[in-house]
Amino acid sequence: METLKTQNNELNRLSKENFKLSLKSNIYIILDNLRSGNNIGSIFRSSDAFRIKNIYISGSSAIPPNKEILKTALGATETIDWEYIENPLEIVKNLQENGVKVFAIEQASNSILLNQFFIESHEQIGLIFGNEVEGVSQELINICNGCIEIPQFGTKHSLNVAVSSGIVLWHLTNQLLNQNEQTNLHK
Amino acid sequence: METLKTQNNELNRLSKENFKLSLKSNIYIILDNLRSGNNIGSIFRSSDAFRIKNIYISGSSAIPPNKEILKTALGATETIDWEYIENPLEIVKNLQENGVKVFAIEQASNSILLNQFFIESHEQIGLIFGNEVEGVSQELINICNGCIEIPQFGTKHSLNVAVSSGIVLWHLTNQLLNQNEQTNLHK
Repeated sequence: METLKTQNNELNRLSKENFKLSLKSNIYIILDNLRSGNNIGSIFRSSDAFRIKNIYISGSSAIPPNKEILKTALGATETIDWEYIENPLEIVKNLQENGVKVFAIEQASNSILLNQFFIESHEQIGLIFGNEVEGVSQELINICNGCIEIPQFGTKHSLNVAVSSGIVLWHLTNQLLNQNEQTNLHK
Repeated sequence: METLKTQNNELNRLSKENFKLSLKSNIYIILDNLRSGNNIGSIFRSSDAFRIKNIYISGSSAIPPNKEILKTALGATETIDWEYIENPLEIVKNLQENGVKVFAIEQASNSILLNQFFIESHEQIGLIFGNEVEGVSQELINICNGCIEIPQFGTKHSLNVAVSSGIVLWHLTNQLLNQNEQTNLHK
């Protein structure tokens, strides 16, 4: 059977208006002190692909419209809901008060390895990604529900933060897709 | 129980020498006509983390040492084995003759959705990532064992290629980790 590349007009892409109306996953992202606008833009792009509910930006991170963010987001800053709140502790506490379990993506003692992290479709999950060099601050980790760690087997034990976020978002999306063919993502 | 960030000296990172000696996953990467050195370097970094066996670079892609690649690879060009072969068809045919199943990461008719793609630890898998705008060429798709597609639900249906490669590498690594606690990656 011949395998042909899909043309752009065959992709069933949502319009910006229909995206706003579509049901989202129960996943929230917090970006604290990210240094690179390129990384932030790339995370917006992945968040559009996996229909993340909201991106919170905090600390010294750049926010849209920023040249680097717009270059790599490819328009996703117009589709994903986002908000800047300077203090990340406030974001985490607000989410937790609304029933969201918040995890830092970080190498830490007592971290949950990503391959052992499972969610159910009704669960609300917040994911914190920190500075490219320093990671997520210990102060923020202290109030989280836990840390999730991507197992690594090489010489660096460090992944680009946009790559890390793509990995974790896919890991959760994959579980939602395989749990239930009728997830929000198909509506 | 207190959760403390892991310090760099606690990460059990392999030395360059021990990395070369370590067992690798049975995964090969082919990068054809990648435009951005930043993306290539980032893919080297992820490949180090997940102990990919070899990166083949082809076509118009930049190769190490290149300023952008070195900046984002963070040294991984010294750990992962790699080779430049101009014609990607030659790479794919060589791999297939050696028992490797080669898949293009591409949106295509008859593609296998990533959440439905499963491997066993003994299988050898090659993954082709193509140009940031054009994707993998139809000519190359024609000789592949199939296409793997990352399901997407937004307005763009496009992910950064370094993010896509991280997602697919994690998806396979996750399966290997959960199949067998004694995978190559722990040796």
